Amino acid sequence: MGPGNIRTGEGDMAKKANAFYAQSGGVTAVINASACGVLEEARSQKDRIGKVYAGRNGIIGALTEDLIDTSKESAKAIAALRHTPSGAFGSARYKLKGLDVNKAEYERLIEVFAAHDIKYFFYNGGGDSADTCLKVSQISQSLGYPIQAVHVPKTVDNDLPLTDVCPGFGSVAKYVAISTREASFDVASMAKTSTKVFVMEVMGRHAGWIAAAGGLASDEDTPIPLVILFPEVTFDREKFLARVDSLVKEHGYCSVVVSEGVKGPDGKFLADQGLRDAFGHAQLGGVGPVIASMVKEGLGLKYHWAVADYLQRAARHIASKTDVDQAYELGRAAVKFALKGHNAVMPTIERISDKPYRWKIGMAPLSKVANVERMMPKNFITKDGFGITEKCRTYLQPLIQGEDYPPYKHGMPQYVRMKGVAVPKKLNTEFVVK
Amino acid sequence: MGPGNIRTGEGDMAKKANAFYAQSGGVTAVINASACGVLEEARSQKDRIGKVYAGRNGIIGALTEDLIDTSKESAKAIAALRHTPSGAFGSARYKLKGLDVNKAEYERLIEVFAAHDIKYFFYNGGGDSADTCLKVSQISQSLGYPIQAVHVPKTVDNDLPLTDVCPGFGSVAKYVAISTREASFDVASMAKTSTKVFVMEVMGRHAGWIAAAGGLASDEDTPIPLVILFPEVTFDREKFLARVDSLVKEHGYCSVVVSEGVKGPDGKFLADQGLRDAFGHAQLGGVGPVIASMVKEGLGLKYHWAVADYLQRAARHIASKTDVDQAYELGRAAVKFALKGHNAVMPTIERISDKPYRWKIGMAPLSKVANVERMMPKNFITKDGFGITEKCRTYLQPLIQGEDYPPYKHGMPQYVRMKGVAVPKKLNTEFVVK
Repeated sequence: MGPGNIRTGEGDMAKKANAFYAQSGGVTAVINASACGVLEEARSQKDRIGKVYAGRNGIIGALTEDLIDTSKESAKAIAALRHTPSGAFGSARYKLKGLDVNKAEYERLIEVFAAHDIKYFFYNGGGDSADTCLKVSQISQSLGYPIQAVHVPKTVDNDLPLTDVCPGFGSVAKYVAISTREASFDVASMAKTSTKVFVMEVMGRHAGWIAAAGGLASDEDTPIPLVILFPEVTFDREKFLARVDSLVKEHGYCSVVVSEGVKGPDGKFLADQGLRDAFGHAQLGGVGPVIASMVKEGLGLKYHWAVADYLQRAARHIASKTDVDQAYELGRAAVKFALKGHNAVMPTIERISDKPYRWKIGMAPLSKVANVERMMPKNFITKDGFGITEKCRTYLQPLIQGEDYPPYKHGMPQYVRMKGVAVPKKLNTEFVVK
Repeated sequence: MGPGNIRTGEGDMAKKANAFYAQSGGVTAVINASACGVLEEARSQKDRIGKVYAGRNGIIGALTEDLIDTSKESAKAIAALRHTPSGAFGSARYKLKGLDVNKAEYERLIEVFAAHDIKYFFYNGGGDSADTCLKVSQISQSLGYPIQAVHVPKTVDNDLPLTDVCPGFGSVAKYVAISTREASFDVASMAKTSTKVFVMEVMGRHAGWIAAAGGLASDEDTPIPLVILFPEVTFDREKFLARVDSLVKEHGYCSVVVSEGVKGPDGKFLADQGLRDAFGHAQLGGVGPVIASMVKEGLGLKYHWAVADYLQRAARHIASKTDVDQAYELGRAAVKFALKGHNAVMPTIERISDKPYRWKIGMAPLSKVANVERMMPKNFITKDGFGITEKCRTYLQPLIQGEDYPPYKHGMPQYVRMKGVAVPKKLNTEFVVK
């Protein structure tokens, strides 16, 4: 095989080589479950894969030759990754530029990979990371270094195409739905003499997937007066206040789930409307307090607001079992795909049926994943712009199904930390990450 | 027995009568567990207690003769109260004035109680409510109506005296400790290229009990660089920033747990430092964003902040089993005390031992509970003012022990709602609550 075709092909036993694994971008409650899947599958394939080296702080670890020898971690510690939130090897917000713009980075990767006999590249991240992974996969062709790059999907934003769902999203969705239900019960019981409107700010700067999950707080058994503010719907102050007013008049209270990405008619984020402190310093306000203040000024109703921020994406204690299972299986699938000779692909979730929810692992070419953002379908939002449709509910509901509790000791969840033993450096060269 | 002594005395079988139960003040994840205890115990004493009428929206329901007939609720629904957050019968922020100031309210209570043959009064609330309960207990002597009033403690603020802990606190403590640990794991894994300081605002306007619980996020097995800001410690900007700076230099990140009640050297709440929007309107900012902005301006570090607000006190999904058990048993004990002839008392939790945590039900006279606020002992805060001592940890740790998960359906916790069937009114008089 020439350098232009490094696929080994199924059954074509490649020489045993080491693998590289890295976490990228914002972490989630289940990205470590994918790490667990990658590492456990790799360990079960000892005749094909030597060691798995993890990048300390993501791809930066590869560029600086700061590799973690995962073989030094016990099987017990690796298994515990499945129930540990965050990125156990460190993640990074760092996007490789194109080969034409910064060839030095790719040459450096090859230098490090070659020094450590790394021929498998597993990258665990979202859309930007899929692009990085694709670029790495192209090293084989463009720079003649034989590497197989497989992307493991991850993002709470749920915006990767060609997969039913992105690991991390289901657990945020579950957290947001439960928290909204719980706070709504609280407000309902106090509304007679106290707070009447509760505002909950959730993540999702570009798409309303997470805000939509708030809609699951209310269902047939447990109806709750809810207003959802999506980034897909231009915010209309008067219409919003009228809706809140009518719900409070009818039910005595209501809850508002607002996406951080909601924009006003001027196209600007509501969160950026320029809060200043007493000294005139700009304050990074959340959109939650902005909306709450509107309710107070426009309707004179007592309000409370919450901003869940990282709590929502780190809440492993209430992770969706479906999400955990999928994250783990996608990690395993990535290794299997690589060993079958695939390059520049991503394992995906294919939905077989809604009720009961059945799914299987599929495969997508990275060229069709990188830099493609999946937006929420228009028919997932009700016509008035404030709620989710039955179609949306049918999509979302299975994703929060099941609980997968971590073990506890002294009342606290027992999350694992890696020993993080460094692989001895083989290169004497420094590389400065810009 | 004359009107001055209506104690029936143990063994002195009083005539069967009805009971009144009401929830008061801010609700919690476990106040309904106390309701469950009261109702189940009363149902088991059918020869002594006829029906239990719950006040719709607390004491307001008594004043307006808006009573809920709890006998119309199924045993299954009552049992489900044990795992349902919020106040199922409606709670109210309403404090009865003194007999001398507003005798009309007490006369009205007697009128309603007499009309419905209510001789037992169970009031489920915090310090203010204990005072109301005490006043109601005095009706017997002052207005000659035979009633036994027993207070069931509840408050996330943990500020009632004479009890080891107040139901509601243990579950908030657990939520705050877990959330802080989870978010800290998140930040730790991203700190190399992203957020370095995470700020979590928690409840507790007068005392730092809840902020202290954040300290449980870090322990011997899982150390986390934490800064806790207590309302008991005057905020010192320079000292705070120096502490954060040093932790970030040493560990790469840190988390800050800040009580909403933190005050500056001027004695004002930091949260009230006067945020204004672009139009000059005052904004109710939380102290979380204020602290976060200080970190940015003072140290130039990237930050994130969360305000858990009602999520923390409604989070039944991760309630402390210890807390749930105690809330339930205190409810039962209140009924038992009343049937033993006690008036103007409150069942308490007495700690027998720390490790293992063992406790029993005690009893305190309401005259020593009402209007007494238990502050956090000074030796619970480290000398530098930013952490909790071992003594504090020994106190707090058992209170978050154990998990008590609610049942789930379609991925969502199944919380119960009462039918809330109204008791037919017997009075033709209106009473306007001021």
